[in-house]
Amino acid sequence: MTSAEIHAAAARGAEPPHGPAASASAAEPVWWGWGPAFAHHPLPPGVSDLLVGLGIPVRPSRPVALADVRLPAVRLPAAARQALEAVVGEVHVRTDDETRIRHCRGRSTTDLLLLRSGDAGAAPDAVVLPADHDEVLALLRVATRERIVVVPYGGGTSVVGGLAPTATQGRPLIAVDLRRLDRLGRIDRESGTAELDAGLRGPRVEELLAPHGLTLGHVPQSWEYATVGGFAATRSSGQASGGYGRFDEMVVGLRVATPAGSWDLGRAPASAAGPDLRALVLGSEGAFGVITQVTVRVRPLPARRIHEGWWVPDFATGTRLLRDLSARDLRPTVCRLADETETIANLSGSTPTVGSASRESAAAGSVTPGPTSGSSVPGSSVPGDSIPGDSASTGVAGDKEKAGAGTGVGGCRLITGFEGSGTEVADRAAQVASILRAGGATALGPDVGLDWERGRFRAPYLRDALLDLGVFAETLETAGFWSSLPDLCTGVRRALTDTLGRAGLAPVVMCHVSHLYATGASLYFTVVCAQGDDPIGTWRAAKAAAGEAIVAAGGTITHHHAVGTEHRPWLGAEIGGLGLDVLRTVKRTLDPAGILNPGVLVP
Amino acid sequence: MTSAEIHAAAARGAEPPHGPAASASAAEPVWWGWGPAFAHHPLPPGVSDLLVGLGIPVRPSRPVALADVRLPAVRLPAAARQALEAVVGEVHVRTDDETRIRHCRGRSTTDLLLLRSGDAGAAPDAVVLPADHDEVLALLRVATRERIVVVPYGGGTSVVGGLAPTATQGRPLIAVDLRRLDRLGRIDRESGTAELDAGLRGPRVEELLAPHGLTLGHVPQSWEYATVGGFAATRSSGQASGGYGRFDEMVVGLRVATPAGSWDLGRAPASAAGPDLRALVLGSEGAFGVITQVTVRVRPLPARRIHEGWWVPDFATGTRLLRDLSARDLRPTVCRLADETETIANLSGSTPTVGSASRESAAAGSVTPGPTSGSSVPGSSVPGDSIPGDSASTGVAGDKEKAGAGTGVGGCRLITGFEGSGTEVADRAAQVASILRAGGATALGPDVGLDWERGRFRAPYLRDALLDLGVFAETLETAGFWSSLPDLCTGVRRALTDTLGRAGLAPVVMCHVSHLYATGASLYFTVVCAQGDDPIGTWRAAKAAAGEAIVAAGGTITHHHAVGTEHRPWLGAEIGGLGLDVLRTVKRTLDPAGILNPGVLVP
Repeated sequence: MTSAEIHAAAARGAEPPHGPAASASAAEPVWWGWGPAFAHHPLPPGVSDLLVGLGIPVRPSRPVALADVRLPAVRLPAAARQALEAVVGEVHVRTDDETRIRHCRGRSTTDLLLLRSGDAGAAPDAVVLPADHDEVLALLRVATRERIVVVPYGGGTSVVGGLAPTATQGRPLIAVDLRRLDRLGRIDRESGTAELDAGLRGPRVEELLAPHGLTLGHVPQSWEYATVGGFAATRSSGQASGGYGRFDEMVVGLRVATPAGSWDLGRAPASAAGPDLRALVLGSEGAFGVITQVTVRVRPLPARRIHEGWWVPDFATGTRLLRDLSARDLRPTVCRLADETETIANLSGSTPTVGSASRESAAAGSVTPGPTSGSSVPGSSVPGDSIPGDSASTGVAGDKEKAGAGTGVGGCRLITGFEGSGTEVADRAAQVASILRAGGATALGPDVGLDWERGRFRAPYLRDALLDLGVFAETLETAGFWSSLPDLCTGVRRALTDTLGRAGLAPVVMCHVSHLYATGASLYFTVVCAQGDDPIGTWRAAKAAAGEAIVAAGGTITHHHAVGTEHRPWLGAEIGGLGLDVLRTVKRTLDPAGILNPGVLVP
Repeated sequence: MTSAEIHAAAARGAEPPHGPAASASAAEPVWWGWGPAFAHHPLPPGVSDLLVGLGIPVRPSRPVALADVRLPAVRLPAAARQALEAVVGEVHVRTDDETRIRHCRGRSTTDLLLLRSGDAGAAPDAVVLPADHDEVLALLRVATRERIVVVPYGGGTSVVGGLAPTATQGRPLIAVDLRRLDRLGRIDRESGTAELDAGLRGPRVEELLAPHGLTLGHVPQSWEYATVGGFAATRSSGQASGGYGRFDEMVVGLRVATPAGSWDLGRAPASAAGPDLRALVLGSEGAFGVITQVTVRVRPLPARRIHEGWWVPDFATGTRLLRDLSARDLRPTVCRLADETETIANLSGSTPTVGSASRESAAAGSVTPGPTSGSSVPGSSVPGDSIPGDSASTGVAGDKEKAGAGTGVGGCRLITGFEGSGTEVADRAAQVASILRAGGATALGPDVGLDWERGRFRAPYLRDALLDLGVFAETLETAGFWSSLPDLCTGVRRALTDTLGRAGLAPVVMCHVSHLYATGASLYFTVVCAQGDDPIGTWRAAKAAAGEAIVAAGGTITHHHAVGTEHRPWLGAEIGGLGLDVLRTVKRTLDPAGILNPGVLVP
């Protein structure tokens, strides 16, 4: 297939752009992928070129029609259905095919491949929409009595199988969709906290807080659809974690509906009244209870935002610089360092211009380092995360990547962003700039950072476009202490490259450092390759190899994607046999009948 | 009794100053109180004056002789003793009276009153000193088999009954003293972490880290004797928590010996691999297992330290200023705001001199506000915490306090301290100074801050001197969100004043704000009053009233003293019935035979 043919196929794949040109986040997503259809665009030509250059075979592949999706018959006994309807009202117990299909599994690439092929075998028997905490409590009582499995459902954006319980034992399964829990509760201005209902999606939270001059500042890539309850249940971490903290750091209070009753936690910012049980609910992935409300720290809307792009000589140097910043507690609000491969994929789509540099970059002189810029394609978004963007230097990058070298392509791109009050932001940015410059980094100006920000939510859309071309794209992540990061990076990269390479899939493996801590950071990997004959099976093998590599290198199996069912094999290595025992026993206490997400998180 | 007679009695109480004039922290404390005898000094004359002014009756009261302490016969069966000796060696199983008495209960005022009266009824049958993690594991196996109750014992500084299990059910009881677990393990310079054995006391940690240019920065008032394991088990928070964080925030990894086996946690700074189980061990108070090693974040020894005293018009204004700083994440390393009563008690012992002011205070002009300084008493340490210091204006303060007013004495003293690298510290101090000044605070210069620092560990020594005079002194603390602090402060103050007042004990109740968070802070109360006929019973009633007031005002029952046995009545209000169920079930999993600190933390 020629590049022109790919372009044509990509364009076809993106048609038709349904719906009004409203903001993507307000609209219902396509049932088979991410975001509303109107937000889907043809694959940027640069990406098509990259695929050709890498020799990744392309075979256009569209989802089946909705009517052709196969899903099991509803197994909900009439008495059970009536009991559920008695709690939430008849209209809020849905068993139509589309609703069930839309609540089938999450949004991992495996989930999407299954859905696109018409497999909705894991669909819930019914989707139930409670109005508030008390209705959730009542639903859990009914489910306990009627032996119904419950999947707490927020945005449906799990990428780890968190919405597909494996231990249902033939029981009916309902998704309890929390979208009606959508209120902003009390704002405590004095304390800087706000009560957020669990069903609020990321954009809605900011819409509700903005009139009060406040922001939450939690912006994971799934922000458009992910919910407050999901943020809490998965220990989510957003792109601005360096400034606003991980989601669990924002939480000061939690309200949870469990089969054993209602549970409220959080009477002070910190306490010595025994173990901090909030930390036991955060990350519980719907296996202990349904989080219905979260009290979070909120902050004033930032008066100023500074973006900056930097060029560092290589990934190791860049990582060391981030370590130096973190050790001094000088973390930018946003900070991500792409490795050489990801840099080529992402950076060449934008054109750093020294003339438009910020005060800091202007002071750095007139150097425009890095690879020669590829063709700039107006209208094509450069993805914010890790899916290859436009690049003219495809062959070189691909060959190097395939050899597992991942170095020597001329340097790495670093994005920094700062948010806050005017003077404080400028001071912090200046301090960071000074350290970066002293460490060999060169400022690329604010446009590079702004480009990144504009594309920060694009990656899952781009994945849909790649799947439309029969190309596989998926991500995984870990975190470790600074001293373990080099081995962690090498080990995971090798595991992915070897496993997928052996299957003849010519993988491109990219990595970036983000989510900085004083003692370590996260590594985020993106894989793009051919699908081959068995993309799901092959990916499972690659993911398993990566999991083993993470454990061997001393990292955590997941920094912000949670355990779900997909990371369960390594949970014992992470928290020990006693840790598993503790999870099991806590679950038995809060959910004696084992109705909540059985098989998710707790083995 | 005249003031002169009190001075004489106080001087007698402090004799004899045993031992060499070495650093207090290196020496074994007196068995009946705090610190080595040579560090005990006569009560500063100003305090004696204060007692007279307040009308607090004084009746000199010395501890009984060690030989007169009553303690139960050793109940350890020979077979059990042999099994313990087989693990640690005969020399490390101690049953002599003095060792048992030294391990009896903790260091609350109630504990000391009992000990001083010769009551060591709660003494362990034996004190066992394991050498390492494996010996602790082996001891727990023996104890499980032989039905022996185990008290994990660090510095013995609990003030909440954490070392006196209540549910022993007639079983023999051993204290497992961890002082031989005293090694600095691996230092990971790249990640900025260090492995610390649980038995290391505060000063020893700093001694071991200093040659590496590092510090932990955890400095609770109990620092001289408290241990790393105790810091972790109780969620300790140090005086420098604004800069270094609470102890639980410093912890990245934990090694725990439990009856169910060995447990290691912490593979990354942060993770989404389920609930953060480190948070379940932190605060577990020896009820789930014995923490044997903690991996902590360490930092470079500070290049610079800036101290500053401030004068604010009143407690409410000062609290609001601290809120403003905290909301901007501009917390000083050390920050404590005394209320009007505590200000009179503490500040008048030092003499703020405008001429010696720092750059910041010099810039503030030549105002020396506040009450006229009392007599400066050379050689008398002004206590770092809350026990009344020298004051010339005793009558006024006392009368006001007795009326429960606690205001109108001319303002409040605020101490700020900053530690870190040179420029960063100066910048931060300047920003804080600017906000404080804009909010109506006046700089008193660095001497006030330095005075506070010099006396920061003196309070428990002073308490011993007060007990020697038959005067009661005790502290309690809470924390809440900023909006709840005024009611919390008023409620607790009233509960203490009313309960003790009804008993005719003329209490002085002081309060300070410390341990700042973005969303709230801690309140620390100090009570000084006559002992009356039943000091323990009366204090229990007052403490219970304070506990009820804390719950009613929405605060946490303890910010950094842990639950022990004394806070257990309010734990259900704090974490809910489900929270108690979770603690019980976790304990059953890790300690099936219930040998670990039964009745402590877990009801």
